[in-house]
Amino acid sequence: MAAPVITVIGGGQLARMMVPAAVRLGVHLRVLVEDPGTSAGQVVADAPVGAASDEAAVRAAAEGSVAVTFEHEHVPDPVLQALLSDGRSVQPGPEALSRAQDKIVMRRTLTDLGVPCPRWAALSRDTAEARRELADFLAGSPDGSAVVKTSRGGYDGKGVRVVSSVDDVVDWFEGVEAGGPALLVEEKVPFVRELAVLVARRPSGETRTWPVVESVQRDGVCSEIIAPAPGITADEARRADEVAVAIAEGLGVTGVLAVEMFEVAGAGPDGTPGVLVNELAMRPHNSGHWTIDGSVTSQFEQHLRAVLDLPLGDTAATAPWTVMANVLGSTLPDLTDALPGVLGSFPDARVELYGKAVREGRKLAHVNVRGDDLDTVRRRAQQAAAVLRGE
Amino acid sequence: MAAPVITVIGGGQLARMMVPAAVRLGVHLRVLVEDPGTSAGQVVADAPVGAASDEAAVRAAAEGSVAVTFEHEHVPDPVLQALLSDGRSVQPGPEALSRAQDKIVMRRTLTDLGVPCPRWAALSRDTAEARRELADFLAGSPDGSAVVKTSRGGYDGKGVRVVSSVDDVVDWFEGVEAGGPALLVEEKVPFVRELAVLVARRPSGETRTWPVVESVQRDGVCSEIIAPAPGITADEARRADEVAVAIAEGLGVTGVLAVEMFEVAGAGPDGTPGVLVNELAMRPHNSGHWTIDGSVTSQFEQHLRAVLDLPLGDTAATAPWTVMANVLGSTLPDLTDALPGVLGSFPDARVELYGKAVREGRKLAHVNVRGDDLDTVRRRAQQAAAVLRGE
Repeated sequence: MAAPVITVIGGGQLARMMVPAAVRLGVHLRVLVEDPGTSAGQVVADAPVGAASDEAAVRAAAEGSVAVTFEHEHVPDPVLQALLSDGRSVQPGPEALSRAQDKIVMRRTLTDLGVPCPRWAALSRDTAEARRELADFLAGSPDGSAVVKTSRGGYDGKGVRVVSSVDDVVDWFEGVEAGGPALLVEEKVPFVRELAVLVARRPSGETRTWPVVESVQRDGVCSEIIAPAPGITADEARRADEVAVAIAEGLGVTGVLAVEMFEVAGAGPDGTPGVLVNELAMRPHNSGHWTIDGSVTSQFEQHLRAVLDLPLGDTAATAPWTVMANVLGSTLPDLTDALPGVLGSFPDARVELYGKAVREGRKLAHVNVRGDDLDTVRRRAQQAAAVLRGE
Repeated sequence: MAAPVITVIGGGQLARMMVPAAVRLGVHLRVLVEDPGTSAGQVVADAPVGAASDEAAVRAAAEGSVAVTFEHEHVPDPVLQALLSDGRSVQPGPEALSRAQDKIVMRRTLTDLGVPCPRWAALSRDTAEARRELADFLAGSPDGSAVVKTSRGGYDGKGVRVVSSVDDVVDWFEGVEAGGPALLVEEKVPFVRELAVLVARRPSGETRTWPVVESVQRDGVCSEIIAPAPGITADEARRADEVAVAIAEGLGVTGVLAVEMFEVAGAGPDGTPGVLVNELAMRPHNSGHWTIDGSVTSQFEQHLRAVLDLPLGDTAATAPWTVMANVLGSTLPDLTDALPGVLGSFPDARVELYGKAVREGRKLAHVNVRGDDLDTVRRRAQQAAAVLRGE
């Protein structure tokens, strides 16, 4: 049987979690990994080694594939263009990816599409000018603070800083002067909570969204996902959903797109809650790990289906509530040591280990718990994750 | 991170379906495959090639593993004994396996345990004597027929024959004379339907059963599983469950055990329906594929947990009904050709392809559908499977 080959660039846990979906669908997964010992490298049968920036390695990994996709957005544009000139199907394509790679481009595109965003401005690369622009932005802020971001290279709270003075980003201005990424400034949104909508889109146009979820953050990193977002009205969910689909279509995204949003009181019609778009990720995303157990079709299977331009699966929830708790760091030398304890005390928990060496704050695993009672589900997910953290 | 290594002997679809569970639990799966192109060989990162009967190959594959397990029962006893003398944890152990490898041993053991079985007799290896024994057995049968089985080597209806005359198994008598497997005869049970109970047991003793299912057979092969068995009473389900647990404990089975049963009218207390045990399989089994989507813990994850002596997971159903439909053969050259059609028409179906070349009657894939209405669920599972069969 000639299994269709999908090449994935990047060997972290997102590529690893594509493995079960690929096995099931009969898809041959080839993952270009940074090292054989990466999270995906340990478990993928076809895992060539090379960097995402190494054009020759990426082109070789793409040979014979029916689609090339990514587990991160950090593939240089010339490499993507080389794949296109080799005739590869690149999903999402370079144009869409460029909007996720650069936050200034992203904000400009979303603003052009009429998508609700926080107030924002791109800072000049002339840092004297940039200091004036930032000072003006801070002067216009109700509490005198704002969020400065590097346009490229940030993730999980890195490259994002809340500032109340121009001097708070002196090091980043120096970075700009040294040829580093440009900066943008955004209002510090007085949000009620953070939401996320995951949408999948296939090249021929079909889109499917999963229920809107609440993303609970700790120190700028997602610690918990509650699906669906508690207390969200059907109207607000529909509007959030429409925003996500508009972005997927407007940016020409294929595969899974995660749209992280702020819920803001009074930002909707007639003073109802509304959403402002915070960040985008053009790939399976932490906010969608709950779908592995909590939805008919997981984000990982849907991503593979989408990049192959296959019909998308049902995204309905399989339980009234699913909570995903991240395991960020652990005091244990090895998470497998915690398996007897966590599986013994939480037979209802779905535990997923990423095969990564323990480091402080590192995403090492997650736990999904489903059920009828949100408080119980949430408590058990948190407790099970705590066991894996060695607490 | 030091992932515990589980060595699996045999590279078919049962080993393949262990991959998603192993990836998730952070277990390193090493599968001894007959050929790199087998169902499991295509997708396992660590897949040495060798036969289950090749002692050196099996011992090498078991090196460094914390447990050795199987996807079929056809590993010769001397090979199992060699693993034990190497100090390996063999799950299930040789003694348990011997009861699944030989149907005469199995029947004798079950009878000794007091497990309800069809009336049966081992036929003599002296075939003149065996002819007389079989003639006597047929003479005692209400309709003059009986079921003759080879004691070893049968599966999926092979090695099983309904006979009404001694002459119907002349070729098998010749086999016995040539040193082939001994024969046994069993009454042809006037069953209402076939049921199956899956139970997992870990070395330290914990057992968990899944809900009792109905197994719909076509030409001696399972074509469909309905979970739970429609209309089964709580009492009958409890008794079937107790039989399965008694067998797992009585035979010292570890890992997953499938107990196939006949439901017989009036065989229970006070004329209620009761069960007689038909066949055993000491491994994940076709009657448990529904658990991948229909239960909190799949049989494949449970098997890995059990052989590692880890606490077992919740086996509750995740939907009122789950139906699994097998895809046995196809008119399509390649099942991946059917993916656009089946995924497009059945977004609710969970399709699993085994990566096998198409051959008549071969198990190539299955489909799971979940839902609230049995008729709908069943119809959709059958229709989706029909698309994969090219109908």
